Amino acid sequence: MQTTMKSLDIDEYMQQVGARARGAAPLMARAGKRAMAAALRAMAAALRAQKDWLQAENAKDLAAARANGLSPAMIDRLTLSDKALGLMVTGLEQIAAMPDPVGELTETRSRPNGMQVARMRVPLGVIGIIYESRPNVTIDAAALCLKSGNATILRGGSEAIHSNTALGRIVRDGLEAAGLPPDAVQVVETTDRAAVGKLVTMTEYVDVIVPRGGKGLIKRLSEEARVPLIKHLDGVCHVYVDQWADLDKAHTIAFNAKTYRYGICGAMEALLVHAAVAERFLPKIGRALIDHGVELRGCERTVALLPGIKAATADDWGTEFAAPVLAVRVVDSLDQAMDHIATYGSQHTDAIVTENLQSARRFQREVDSSSVYVNLPTCFADGFEYGLGAEIGISTNKLHARGPVGLEGLTTLKWVLTGDAQTRG
Amino acid sequence: MQTTMKSLDIDEYMQQVGARARGAAPLMARAGKRAMAAALRAMAAALRAQKDWLQAENAKDLAAARANGLSPAMIDRLTLSDKALGLMVTGLEQIAAMPDPVGELTETRSRPNGMQVARMRVPLGVIGIIYESRPNVTIDAAALCLKSGNATILRGGSEAIHSNTALGRIVRDGLEAAGLPPDAVQVVETTDRAAVGKLVTMTEYVDVIVPRGGKGLIKRLSEEARVPLIKHLDGVCHVYVDQWADLDKAHTIAFNAKTYRYGICGAMEALLVHAAVAERFLPKIGRALIDHGVELRGCERTVALLPGIKAATADDWGTEFAAPVLAVRVVDSLDQAMDHIATYGSQHTDAIVTENLQSARRFQREVDSSSVYVNLPTCFADGFEYGLGAEIGISTNKLHARGPVGLEGLTTLKWVLTGDAQTRG
Repeated sequence: MQTTMKSLDIDEYMQQVGARARGAAPLMARAGKRAMAAALRAMAAALRAQKDWLQAENAKDLAAARANGLSPAMIDRLTLSDKALGLMVTGLEQIAAMPDPVGELTETRSRPNGMQVARMRVPLGVIGIIYESRPNVTIDAAALCLKSGNATILRGGSEAIHSNTALGRIVRDGLEAAGLPPDAVQVVETTDRAAVGKLVTMTEYVDVIVPRGGKGLIKRLSEEARVPLIKHLDGVCHVYVDQWADLDKAHTIAFNAKTYRYGICGAMEALLVHAAVAERFLPKIGRALIDHGVELRGCERTVALLPGIKAATADDWGTEFAAPVLAVRVVDSLDQAMDHIATYGSQHTDAIVTENLQSARRFQREVDSSSVYVNLPTCFADGFEYGLGAEIGISTNKLHARGPVGLEGLTTLKWVLTGDAQTRG
Repeated sequence: MQTTMKSLDIDEYMQQVGARARGAAPLMARAGKRAMAAALRAMAAALRAQKDWLQAENAKDLAAARANGLSPAMIDRLTLSDKALGLMVTGLEQIAAMPDPVGELTETRSRPNGMQVARMRVPLGVIGIIYESRPNVTIDAAALCLKSGNATILRGGSEAIHSNTALGRIVRDGLEAAGLPPDAVQVVETTDRAAVGKLVTMTEYVDVIVPRGGKGLIKRLSEEARVPLIKHLDGVCHVYVDQWADLDKAHTIAFNAKTYRYGICGAMEALLVHAAVAERFLPKIGRALIDHGVELRGCERTVALLPGIKAATADDWGTEFAAPVLAVRVVDSLDQAMDHIATYGSQHTDAIVTENLQSARRFQREVDSSSVYVNLPTCFADGFEYGLGAEIGISTNKLHARGPVGLEGLTTLKWVLTGDAQTRG
């Protein structure tokens, strides 16, 4: 495959990939739940049966990665260990067991002329996934797109090309075994960067792109893309401790929001504290965070309460540290806290700690973020925690899918009307 | 205003318009239903009270239109007649009386750890509307965006600049009278084309653009835009008369689908008839349509049944005639009909006429159009007919809003979580 491909023009190759995906999409849309589950189970079985071959293919990527001096963390993410393969198998089995989103009817209503109006959940069509080094995304993304009735084009990182191509083969065989079109999931088998440029502009063949990777990747794609993106940009999350907060709860929430994991997009990056409770709240939480290894950067009033911490600079507000660093500010009112969030936040996930119903209601209604919490740490921002069963990603878009995106985000609603020869006019 | 504006750089002017809209958006999001209704009613009252002034401003546009040789149809659409103003007043009153979409909670669920997860309907933020000569859109669009809690930037056609600016004044005064931010609805007071280019790329200030106009406008905007568009492209609608159709119903449906109005996007452009019923069905409906002044263009088998009609050329399939012209084809199966629709349709609205449940179910599930009908004419494609109460437009997008778009299309869902200091991990 790869040698043939090299001789082809990349544009033409991607055009062919796109046309095959578009051709497979209607067959996937009408495939039964049973065939979908059979395909997912066949893939799980093949991951187990062909472990040695997969790990041999993966070894080629690992050798190249070492030769290119990739960091140990990168190499770890790239490795198809027994454990990594086991997690993929479990993932496939879980997705196979999930309820099928396609075909569901909602908002059914009868019109005065007797016709029935409803909305039917249907696949989007063709989904492009662009991701970086983790090869497990090949299996996860393929499974989620399959379960939601879509055809998929997968474009992974060049450092995982052998692993992804091998996993693509497993997926393809699984589709065939279940009587589904093998072109319903295609791995782009070239590392040429031009393939990405083509993928995000083939509006005739691709309905949506889900980029999974760092901010650099997303920004670049946003600029080039003509196909809509379900994208994730910054996660600059705030916790605001209200004047009416229960300070024990506030301590628990702030500590968890910062320390559950520093690198996730739901990690708290700034703590806002009402002046009326700052003196009672800040010294204790400050000490606990410092003891845990978190560096605090405070406003003037915070520094006065926690002598020895760094003063925050203008750049610290609105920064996604993704590290054990936290900006802390004392504010004079709920409005000032919400203004701060509107100015410096990224409309991702923000929380209030309060026992006051009016504060809770105003915050939840007025803060324009994809997730707004009352008395919960921002680190809950995750599709599984929300009960979505699976997560495609967390969208910072406002249109279509906002916040954690489950299978539903890979579907759309069409209108279905049924009548008996009613006429208009 | 207009003289000041001319001295400003268009980019800078639009930047200011955008910043003011963004500033007004949170105030609109938190405004109560009562203020919204008061603003809409104040606008209705002002339209009545300031009729003479509005018509005098409109006369300036009409004089220019006549001088520029605009067609009588264009001039008719541009005229703020007593009747046109009356319809705007009625529209405002209807929108004021509609249920408020903002704040609604859905999909409420409890998680095993006791936290509550729900989705709250909220405004999108700032909506840009770009439209052609009808000045009534200024009032309609302002009212719909207002009702859904958004700030709005309106950019009408240059031939209606005086009318739109005057109507914008009425809207602004209505907002002020109700204690709402007057910048929540701004009419772009320059006819410079560069203002549109800026509007559709100011992603920091504008959340979505709704273009209302011809295909040329939409295509041009699609190419330039960085802000997402809720757009309408072609309406190439099909009616397929199945082997199992009730032919009387099929006659009623096909006739209404074509003749209700030739110019609407839901008008049938191609009729597909199963070979098993063609001989019984086509001569009669063909004659009825021809008698009504519709020109038929048929496939070979259709021409054999309706001697004297034109033979369809390859270009006739997939053309939006928007005129008394209809392409007619005899097909051999439901699958062939669906293939035809997939190949030549525009994924707008397509209908099957059948008494067979399997045909109906397959058609409704497998035809990938924004509206799919059983036993109804395609001309029902309209938000009011669907019971949406209002229509922003008909979207041919797959993401966010598909098919007729009501107020809901100007809103989005955010996640709201409420807990009691549950922690993760």
